[in-house]
Amino acid sequence: MLRVLKFGGTSVGTLDRIQNVAEIIKKFRNQGDDIIAVVSAMSGETNKLIEYAESYTKTPKSDELDMLLSSGERVTSALLSIALNSQGYKATSMSGRQAGIVTDSAHTKARIESIDTSGMKDAIADGNIIIVAGFQGVSQDTGRVSTLGRGGSDLTAVAIAGAIEADLCEIYTDVDGIYTTDPRIEPKAKKLNAISYDEMLELASLGAKVLQNRSVEMAKKLNVNLVSRSSFTPDVEGTLITKEEEIMEKPIVSGIALDRSQVRVGMYGVTDRPGIASAIFTALADANINVDMIVQTVGVDGKTDLDFTIPTTDWEICKTVMEKFKGETENIDYNDKICKVSIVGVGMKSHTGVASKAFTALGSENINIRIISTSEIKISMIIDEKYAELAVRALHDAYELDK
Amino acid sequence: MLRVLKFGGTSVGTLDRIQNVAEIIKKFRNQGDDIIAVVSAMSGETNKLIEYAESYTKTPKSDELDMLLSSGERVTSALLSIALNSQGYKATSMSGRQAGIVTDSAHTKARIESIDTSGMKDAIADGNIIIVAGFQGVSQDTGRVSTLGRGGSDLTAVAIAGAIEADLCEIYTDVDGIYTTDPRIEPKAKKLNAISYDEMLELASLGAKVLQNRSVEMAKKLNVNLVSRSSFTPDVEGTLITKEEEIMEKPIVSGIALDRSQVRVGMYGVTDRPGIASAIFTALADANINVDMIVQTVGVDGKTDLDFTIPTTDWEICKTVMEKFKGETENIDYNDKICKVSIVGVGMKSHTGVASKAFTALGSENINIRIISTSEIKISMIIDEKYAELAVRALHDAYELDK
Repeated sequence: MLRVLKFGGTSVGTLDRIQNVAEIIKKFRNQGDDIIAVVSAMSGETNKLIEYAESYTKTPKSDELDMLLSSGERVTSALLSIALNSQGYKATSMSGRQAGIVTDSAHTKARIESIDTSGMKDAIADGNIIIVAGFQGVSQDTGRVSTLGRGGSDLTAVAIAGAIEADLCEIYTDVDGIYTTDPRIEPKAKKLNAISYDEMLELASLGAKVLQNRSVEMAKKLNVNLVSRSSFTPDVEGTLITKEEEIMEKPIVSGIALDRSQVRVGMYGVTDRPGIASAIFTALADANINVDMIVQTVGVDGKTDLDFTIPTTDWEICKTVMEKFKGETENIDYNDKICKVSIVGVGMKSHTGVASKAFTALGSENINIRIISTSEIKISMIIDEKYAELAVRALHDAYELDK
Repeated sequence: MLRVLKFGGTSVGTLDRIQNVAEIIKKFRNQGDDIIAVVSAMSGETNKLIEYAESYTKTPKSDELDMLLSSGERVTSALLSIALNSQGYKATSMSGRQAGIVTDSAHTKARIESIDTSGMKDAIADGNIIIVAGFQGVSQDTGRVSTLGRGGSDLTAVAIAGAIEADLCEIYTDVDGIYTTDPRIEPKAKKLNAISYDEMLELASLGAKVLQNRSVEMAKKLNVNLVSRSSFTPDVEGTLITKEEEIMEKPIVSGIALDRSQVRVGMYGVTDRPGIASAIFTALADANINVDMIVQTVGVDGKTDLDFTIPTTDWEICKTVMEKFKGETENIDYNDKICKVSIVGVGMKSHTGVASKAFTALGSENINIRIISTSEIKISMIIDEKYAELAVRALHDAYELDK
């Protein structure tokens, strides 16, 4: 069995924790598995280096920033390899370059273009455990080290697992898997055994701390069996994220996600001329604003109302864009005291009554639903933020997710 | 003018000091010079990483230790390049690999085998200041990063200066040059303007903090004009170390060196059979003991006395070797309460009376000379350690080195 294991900054944050990671690797090795471990920088290191760079300028040259930041992962990979070798396990560290990871030249946010796995395959054939410095590759154009941006070490692991056709790609963090909802809100939340890529993408807020969407998307594209588990409780099986067809028991609803980082924009009394909605949303798209949910209600006297949500971080830019439409609108208001609650599950495709159960559950708690949007595997509702936790618990109960 | 500048760990020990280094580079750049700067890791970093590695094992795998230790210089090179670029100076950092430095595969103490300067030449032609991560190269055999051992960044600078035929190779430390003797012993010591390679090698103890013999030897071999100067007082011209022929005024004596780290070994009443001296010194050489000064006095009754000095660090091994010769010796004693005072100067070759002046100077202070050895440009004397400072000052006066 060929396993790609990825250990994040917290999992390798101290020398003791690196030893703990060595124990996990040794256990698999003793079972006869082949192992490629991808490691992040020790927690705090990358931020320290960024602070160093920013002491000179807020806009450091990107290829130099990559030269700087890539050093942290190299340190961890060497330390882990030293630990393993000293304990009688043959291991070799590899930089991104040595692991054959070639990227474009968009320094600090490079994309992996190809992976030449021959070096890794040779090292494995030679009996080595491979420790890859995550988050980095080498730019095809310039030959300089490049980094992959946020979540780059996860991407490294998934891309390697895909290229080398590993059996599993396990992402280790300090959380032992994906839960039916945030356990800090609903203590009865249960860890999921398995979940499909699409559900995981929709449940982003539940996996935000442990899996970035970019990695899940790549895993889906490359057919990589992803596992989210904890390096602090390595005996606990994590959550497998895989193809829908691979999942045996498909619950109707897998989880309840909560997103507090949205602002609701209400445009009232908009002149209802042809193309007005298109003009508004094109302007927002041009400003790189990610509009999420949209509702249009046709009013009277040739006027219409538009309601949509945007990420809180885009609020200021959105206001600037809205200036253009002031002449065509009676009133524009913003409300950030809202949140989005979502019910996610592949089982919805084949079951009816899922949405009505949600409306009933919220209704019985007197929670007003402001906007609703649905997709094949998701129902999202905008409600007042003060009801956030209550709504999550009510829905968790309604779908019996604690069972 | 093409300058190679090397900045040690203390010179780049803080973000402010890296900025200070940037100022030095900018000054030369504004004069129109081309610049290759070689940098060490920020002071303390390498030791920190070694401690990390040694927390797992006292004998970390050498190629992994190189992966680990080489990261410190990469960080400094990127930071310095970021600082320069942000201040409007075009600069590019390079790892040892990118600078074309190829070594053998003796990890942690690799030797530079060749330098492909084409990448650096292209970058210079492109208008870049080059910042090379010192202390490292890439192993020809394995393609893995290698480090050059103690003083490796100096070696990097000298080797690059030689390969690219730079006009100067300036080694910056916190000391502003080579002095006629240690100023802590003789406050009247004067900084030398220029000194020959051979004198510098003999005066090793005076340059120990600023220049390693390995670098001076390489500079001599590659005809590199070496300068020892300080990054903290960059307006002070340092000391030029160059070919004897390049030095205009050649003083008879250039400096007085002191070495306290020797042990005198006395073998008394050695059986005077043919080959006995050869047997003893061959045995010491086989044990990798660097025997320095040797005196043999023929005694009576077919006995002889042998007196020699060894580094204090080899004392224990020497005792073991001496065990073999116990049967052929009446008495062996060791004395580490001695020191070696040396007078160095290329002018000695063509002047007489240099040695007698030394003997007179020490004699008038009642300092007994235990062993004397002379070479073309050096007179060394073993004396009791308690007279060390007195002897240095007496000799400094006798040769009027403060003038």
